Order: sequence, then structure tokens, then C-alpha cells
Amino acid sequence: MTISALQKARAQYQPKLPKSLKGAVKLVDGAATESVADQEEIKKLFPNTYGMPIVTLEEGSDAIEFPAMNVGVILSGGQAPGGHNVISGIFDGIKQLNAGSKLFGFLGGPGGLVDHKYIEITAEYLEGYRNTGGFDIIGSGRTKLEEEAQFDKGLEILKELDIKALVIIGGDDSNTNACVLAEYYAAKDAGVQVIGCPKTIDGDLKNEMIETSFGFDTAVKVYSELIGNIQRDANSAKKYWHFIKLMGRSASHIGLEAALQTQPNITLISEEVAEKKQTLEQIVDYMAGIVAKRAANGDNFGVALIPEGLIEFVPEMKKLIAELNDLLAEGSDIEKEFKMMKKGHRLEWLATQLTPESAAVFKSLPSGIANQLTLDRDPHGNVQVSLIETEKLLGEMVKTRLAEMKEKGEFNGKFGTQYHFFGYEGRCAAPSNFDADYCYSLGYTASVLIGSGKTGYMSSVRNTTAAADEWIAGGVPVTMMMNMEKRHGHMKPVIQKALVELDGAPYKYLVANRDQWAVETCYLYPGPIQYWGPTEVCDRTTVTLQLEQEGK
Amino acid sequence: MTISALQKARAQYQPKLPKSLKGAVKLVDGAATESVADQEEIKKLFPNTYGMPIVTLEEGSDAIEFPAMNVGVILSGGQAPGGHNVISGIFDGIKQLNAGSKLFGFLGGPGGLVDHKYIEITAEYLEGYRNTGGFDIIGSGRTKLEEEAQFDKGLEILKELDIKALVIIGGDDSNTNACVLAEYYAAKDAGVQVIGCPKTIDGDLKNEMIETSFGFDTAVKVYSELIGNIQRDANSAKKYWHFIKLMGRSASHIGLEAALQTQPNITLISEEVAEKKQTLEQIVDYMAGIVAKRAANGDNFGVALIPEGLIEFVPEMKKLIAELNDLLAEGSDIEKEFKMMKKGHRLEWLATQLTPESAAVFKSLPSGIANQLTLDRDPHGNVQVSLIETEKLLGEMVKTRLAEMKEKGEFNGKFGTQYHFFGYEGRCAAPSNFDADYCYSLGYTASVLIGSGKTGYMSSVRNTTAAADEWIAGGVPVTMMMNMEKRHGHMKPVIQKALVELDGAPYKYLVANRDQWAVETCYLYPGPIQYWGPTEVCDRTTVTLQLEQEGK
Repeated sequence: MTISALQKARAQYQPKLPKSLKGAVKLVDGAATESVADQEEIKKLFPNTYGMPIVTLEEGSDAIEFPAMNVGVILSGGQAPGGHNVISGIFDGIKQLNAGSKLFGFLGGPGGLVDHKYIEITAEYLEGYRNTGGFDIIGSGRTKLEEEAQFDKGLEILKELDIKALVIIGGDDSNTNACVLAEYYAAKDAGVQVIGCPKTIDGDLKNEMIETSFGFDTAVKVYSELIGNIQRDANSAKKYWHFIKLMGRSASHIGLEAALQTQPNITLISEEVAEKKQTLEQIVDYMAGIVAKRAANGDNFGVALIPEGLIEFVPEMKKLIAELNDLLAEGSDIEKEFKMMKKGHRLEWLATQLTPESAAVFKSLPSGIANQLTLDRDPHGNVQVSLIETEKLLGEMVKTRLAEMKEKGEFNGKFGTQYHFFGYEGRCAAPSNFDADYCYSLGYTASVLIGSGKTGYMSSVRNTTAAADEWIAGGVPVTMMMNMEKRHGHMKPVIQKALVELDGAPYKYLVANRDQWAVETCYLYPGPIQYWGPTEVCDRTTVTLQLEQEGK
Repeated sequence: MTISALQKARAQYQPKLPKSLKGAVKLVDGAATESVADQEEIKKLFPNTYGMPIVTLEEGSDAIEFPAMNVGVILSGGQAPGGHNVISGIFDGIKQLNAGSKLFGFLGGPGGLVDHKYIEITAEYLEGYRNTGGFDIIGSGRTKLEEEAQFDKGLEILKELDIKALVIIGGDDSNTNACVLAEYYAAKDAGVQVIGCPKTIDGDLKNEMIETSFGFDTAVKVYSELIGNIQRDANSAKKYWHFIKLMGRSASHIGLEAALQTQPNITLISEEVAEKKQTLEQIVDYMAGIVAKRAANGDNFGVALIPEGLIEFVPEMKKLIAELNDLLAEGSDIEKEFKMMKKGHRLEWLATQLTPESAAVFKSLPSGIANQLTLDRDPHGNVQVSLIETEKLLGEMVKTRLAEMKEKGEFNGKFGTQYHFFGYEGRCAAPSNFDADYCYSLGYTASVLIGSGKTGYMSSVRNTTAAADEWIAGGVPVTMMMNMEKRHGHMKPVIQKALVELDGAPYKYLVANRDQWAVETCYLYPGPIQYWGPTEVCDRTTVTLQLEQEGK
């Protein structure tokens, strides 16, 4: 296999570990835990895995003899930089416990467990994947482990391979399911432990005990590199507004962190839009206002960051979409009439069927977008919000608004746009030093938790704004992070998703600075991720993490 | 001004210079030169700047006393990484000759000279721009210096500021104009020398004496980082074909180099399409064939690189566009009839007005694209080829072709697409070590050429695949690179544009490997540009440059 010069050099990197994991390790149990809410219900659902103590790993004095054991690992959901290093950490960890231990990888995500598709991850096979991006070592997938039939089918292969513990690397849902699985196997006395690892570039799996999910650091650094480059171009050519949409459906952590790293003129935060119940018109007014202010200073250029999931957070759009889903439900009378109608009259007529508020919103949309909302439906008949090109929708609406402002003498400039969407560019980047170290430590920690017989825990590495040496490794009972939420009509125990907190330090920092960033040109150019060089360049964490930890 | 950690660290970087420029420098004249073609005509047009010798800079024994002199500099055309370092090199060079020398920057491109807009670039001002990307130090612009009135207007300010020499940093057209200006000022005995510097990320300004244009190295490395990341994602998620369009209208050097750095499944080269007179159908067949072959192996994913200017190289599309431009010329009978017609019938009717060949091509286009070809015209009434989203056009056509193949049993897979366009992401990236060193050396060389009284030369640094120490600095008469070409209906002396050569080593390397890369998954992941670390990572040149120089 030919590999790039960087891959060759980077293969030699030995990820940094917390001091406590470098030699003999001692497990220290903390106090018993409670779930963040709905304690009674969660306790009832997880009789075997509820209330366990937080566990901290400390330097031990004596090396303990461990028996050889087989461990399985699964990558679940979307790619995130560092997954391969979690696996490296698990591998090195269980080999350290006993050289006879073996690691099996289930292929293509959780489905691999159910379908009994796996490989043994040998030292030689692993060699090519250390410190690399991607999930290609064993692949990933979106099958959800939710049914007991799946659990039982999985247990067959786990028994066949004599696997004593399973590590599931995934986001909030996957870790919730990991805990359900842990509980199920514990209740059955199946002899299989389950440990979770916090993964997601979206950054929405974090809480008191999990400071950040892995991959967020690297992915946002890649996006910030590109945003910085585009800002430099905008400021050199001085002729375009760049509207940049960033991946992340449910939380705006990516956009917020990218903004803190690059200081663009406009940053939309979905959580703010929802909290303030902003209308599309208000958002467009805000953006057009900044364009006009900059134009008044002779600056007909700028950069705006837009979270991918924005539309779903605008209350009036949510309402409009719900109404359209009902009206145009397959086989309804209105759908039939709509389909029979000539294209030129459809939208106008449809507006008459909506509530007055939704009709007004519907009419304010550019016709291409309005059409898209009525035509492209998913297999369940729902509007496919993810197909809406939010950056172009906003660009067109701002343009229209500026034309009106021009007539009133409120805008006296030019407005040319370029559109970008960044997502796939960062999900599989080679991990930054931070993610390489953090992931390796998470994996190594998982192996210690396994060796100590723990189940239903998530691997946790804290104090991550300090040098890696000082990081605190341990395990957190997954049930501790749970509450009851309605999913598909039923109340379910789930890990609370961490949205951007409007009273959190990162958001407050944005708010304190954004008016200045809007009008002045305060761009920062973070540049590409560096693996060698000054430590303040190579080992820096995200601004979000710094601000959050400073605030504690 | 707040700057990023990387900017802070990178500001300390001292670009490497060729050995010959480190101390006292000696100018060695070579033999007299001839233009690459049309010698008689070029000679007649450039009586004062034709036939001059190639100049090489060598280590001198004695430091020569130079008088203080004022120099002007202009950034022309599109941004390219390293422009700020060219200016740093000029500045340090003329200060080295005489500490009393001054550098003036004309603002916003060549227009700044004509409009008398300038700043003095002081040591302090320059400090913040060393080793940074962008052209924001003085801005750039696309005004063409072609008229004698402009030259005379420029001369006024040059005289006022006592500027003895002007450095124009630009692409092939800008350097052509720099030479015309040099000739004009020489003929007038105006006392102003003009020196050019070879800039463009497109890589199409190169020849025997100019090994590469600056910015190409950095820009393609940024695109290759992103392509590599996307490839890793494709190979992890295994569910999408990513169609990636790359900036570059007239030459495919960017796509070719990116392919050599990343080994994608499909790489389209505009020059090959033109040479082989390929039809759109043939291109689509080629692409669909690869998708089907990979699907047969169970690989329903891949990456295809598409040069931005492809459409204009497809002979039948060129013909179709020319016919549409004629038919729909503003005010023509056909245009009037077309506009009166109902939208549903327009395209069908218009096809009947085309030649049979063009009608067939027109009908094969997805309707959205066909519509776009008839509607969006530039101010001269021409179809705006640049608005055509080539990557989506090809994606839709491949999809249609695959559906046909499926019916015949020739395709048995899935085809989901993601589209990307990379251009602005790379034009203003902070220069790689190569571009930082190369640009600084080009600027420093320009200062020596100025000190020696040269005009009508382009700054040249060769032997660039060796260590910087061994680079050969010098000057090349611009007339040497010229031939006569038809531009806007008139024969003009211009620097030959360097397209991808189909008998050149880089293209041949692609052809020798692309069938394997198509079917197998041979992706390379070059990762982000590194400024520190192993030299084989930090100081590597482009593969194009390596292969071209090896072949010499």
C-alpha cells in the first residue's frame, strides 16, 4: 500500500497518555451516582447498571495479573477523526493487561454484531491505521441496536468468539443503546461487559463528566482552516459575501467554535433562533443589516456561518413544514388536487390552504425553495428539510431585502455571493494531536475498565485543557447522563443531548464580540492543523473547551 | 490586531534563499534570446526589449555600492498564496542593496497605478504580512494595463514618487502587459524599469525557464488535503460518489496534480477531452463505466475530479453554445419568438432551430441545465458557461446512464452523489514552505534585476526540485516566452499559455495508473500542509514539478 509522506511520518507518532495510565493502574471508586433527571424511572429500567459509582484511574503501585481476554469493538454512526486511535488504545491496553488478549472488530457498524461479520484486529493490521482519520479499519454503520432479538443474535457470536467485553464507539444514541445492551447482558448474566466511548464531530455529547466528544476538535479545525482561507480571500478580493453552511443538524457547536476560531462577520446559532423564537424575516433582517453597515464603510464583502440544521429551529418554519406534511400527505384530497393543478398555479393555491401565518412565510420564500418544500418528500411522506440549501435560501432572501433597502436609500453597495458547505471535508481528517491523544487515552481507559470488570460505563478523560500528563482518566456510569425523553411517540431513557447553552461561556463570548466582528474586519486565520512545531500551535484545544473549563 | 497561534509562530519563519542570493551577487549574461515563435513580428513590436540575454545570478566576490532607489509593486488578478512573500523579498532585497531604498505598493491592482492610489510599504507594515496568504497587503484587481493613456497616467505618479522600477506580480496576461509597459517606457526613455513575477494557482504560466508559477503548490495541496479527507470518508461510509469540481478555467493542471497527490477513481482532463474530441456522452459513458465496475466489486462509492472549465473543452458543447449565442442574440426574431413561447414548449422548439448535432446534444442535457443555457446570459448576450454546475450536470447524466445500464443488467449497484467545488478554499491559504521560499526568492531576485538596471525581464528561480540552497536565480526576457495569438479578433503578442501536455510526464503518469485507481481503491491521504516536521513532509514540491524535472 502506497501512503503519503505525512501518513508515513505520522505513523511514528506515539499518542500521549495521562500519567495515571503509563504504569500500573489503580481503580478508585467515587460515590454512587444518580441520573440527571427522572431518577425513579431510570432506576427501574436499569436495575443492574443504575447508581454505580464514578470511577477514577490513578497510578498504582503493583502491576496486577490479568487473564487474557477477548474484546470486541464497534464503530457506530457518522465518521469522526480519531476512531482508529480509540481502537489502538483499546488494543495496546488489553495487550498490556495480558499479551494473550485479542481484539475483534465488528464490520460496518452495529449491524456487524447482529450479522456476525467481524475480523480479528492484529498488531500488524492495526499498524497502518494508527493516527489516521476515517473509520475504514472496520467500517461504520447506522443500524440501531435496540431490539432484544439483536442483542441475542449478537450474544451468539460474542460467545462463539469468547468475547468478554464489547466497546461501542458512538454518539449519544449509540451510547444510550450501549447501556441498554449492558443492562440486558447483565440481567441475563451473559458474561459480556459493555463500555461506551463518546464520539461525534457535532460536539453534542458532553456533560459534567464528558468534557468533549472526540473528533470535534479536528473537524472544526479543518472547517476553521477553510473559513480562514476564505476570509483572507474575501478581504483580498473585496467583492463577495461567502455564505458558509456547516455540518451539524441538531446543535450549533461546530458553527460556534468555528466562529471563535475565525471571527467572521455573521454567525447564526440555531439554539438562539429557537430560544428567541426568531422568524426567517428577522434573521434575514439581521444579516441584511450587517451587509448594509459594512457596505456603508466601503466593505462589500464578508463571511457568514450558517448551521446546517437552522431551518428546523425557526419556529414558523417548523410550523409551516408540519402543515405541509399534513396537507400533502399521500393520498389526501389536497394532495390529489395539488398534483392535478398546473405548475404555474400550484404554489399560490397551496398558500390558501395554509394557516394565515404559514401562508405568509410560504409566500416569502424564493419560489425554488417553496417548490422544493412541496415536491421532494422522504419515504414517510415528510418534507426533506436536509435537502433545503439553507445557505442559498438565506442568500436569496438577503438579496431581496437589500434591493428593498436600496430603494429606501438604506443600502448603497453591491452584494455578490459565493456558497459553501463543509462537512465531509472534516469528518475523516487525520486526528489533531489533541484528538490523537484523547482518543488513544479513551481507548486505553476502556481497556482498564474492562480489565476491572466494569459494564455500563462510558470511558471518560477529563481535565483536557491541561497537558495530557495531567488528564484524569476514569469511567462514568452511562445511566448518570440519562433522562426520559419522548422519541417516536414513546418515553425513552436517553442521554441528554448537549445543545449550545445560551448562558455558557462560549456563546457569551460570541455575543460580547459579534457586533464588532460584524462591522469591522477582525478575521483570524487559524491555518491548517499542525502535527509538529510549537506546542501552542500543535496541541491547542478548541476555544469552546478552554472557555467552558475556565468557567468552572 | 489579534492573530492566530499559527500566524504568530509562522511570522518568525525566515524563508530560504538560493546560495547565490545570500551574499554579494554577480550577474552573468547568457546568450541572446529569441521568442518561442513569430520572431520577426515580436522583434518588430519590442525593438527595445527583444533578444536580450537570459541572466543568471551567481555568488559575487565584492559587494557593489548601489544608490538608494524607489520601487513600486502591483498585485494583478486572482489571489495566489505567496504574494506577500514576493513583496517581502523585494523589500528585503532593495534594502540590502541600499538601506535608503523605498517600496511603494499600488492599491487594488493595476488600477492603483492609473488612479494614483498607493501606500509606502514600511518595515513595520510589512511585518504582519510575512509568510501569510492573501493579497490584502495592497489588494489586487483585474484592470488590464493595455492602453498608452494608462501608461502615461501611471508614469505621472511614478515620476512624482521618483520610482525607478515597477514589479508586476501576475499571470500570463499581466506579464505580457508588463513587457508591453517595459517596452513603452524604454522607447520613451522614461527611466522606469518593469519586472514581472510569475503568479497563478492555475499553473498555466510555465515554460523552459519558469518551472512553476507561485501559489500552485499551496493551492493544490489544500485541495488535495480536502480530496484526501473526502476519499477517506467515502471509503469509510461506503455510500457516496463525491463529484469534486476544481477551480481552473483554461488548464487542468490543478486537477492533474490533485489526482497525482490523492489517486482518485476518476480524473477528467480538459486538454484530453479537447484533443480526443470527446463528446459529453463519451465522458458520461466513461464515468458510468467506472461506477458500474466498482459496483460489481461491491464498492458503491468513489471520487471523481472535474476541472471547472471542462464544458468549454468539449467540442460539441462549444458548438452548441456558439449556436445558442447566435440564435438567441438579443433582439433576434428567434429570441423574440422564444420569449413569447410558453415555458413548457420552449426547449423543444428551440431544439428544432439548432443543427441536428447540436439539437441532439441539447436534448441530452438535464432540463435544468438546458434552461440555464437559454436564460442566463452575460452583458454581451453570451451564455455564461461559468454558471453551469458541471459537477451536477455530469452527476445527473451519469445517473441517467446508470439507470439505462441497470435495465440491461450492466449495472447492479447504488449511486448516491455528493457535490463539492473547491477554489476559494485554496487561493489565499498561507503559503507552504515551498511557496514561502520560492516567492521570497522571486522577489529578492527581482530586486537584484532592478539594481542591475534590467527591464522587460521576468524574475526566474529554477532547479526548484533541489534544496533551496541550490536553486538558480536569474531573469528571463519576457519576449522570449511570446508568440502571436488571436485575441478579441486581433493578432497580439502574448506569453504562450501552458496547457497540460499530453506527452508530458505528469499526464502520462496519470494515464499509466488511472485504470487501476478507477477500480481499486488506491486513495492517498496527503493531509494538511505542514510547516514544521520532517523535511520530506514540509518541503515536498508538487508531483507535477518532480515528474517534469525528472523528465528533463
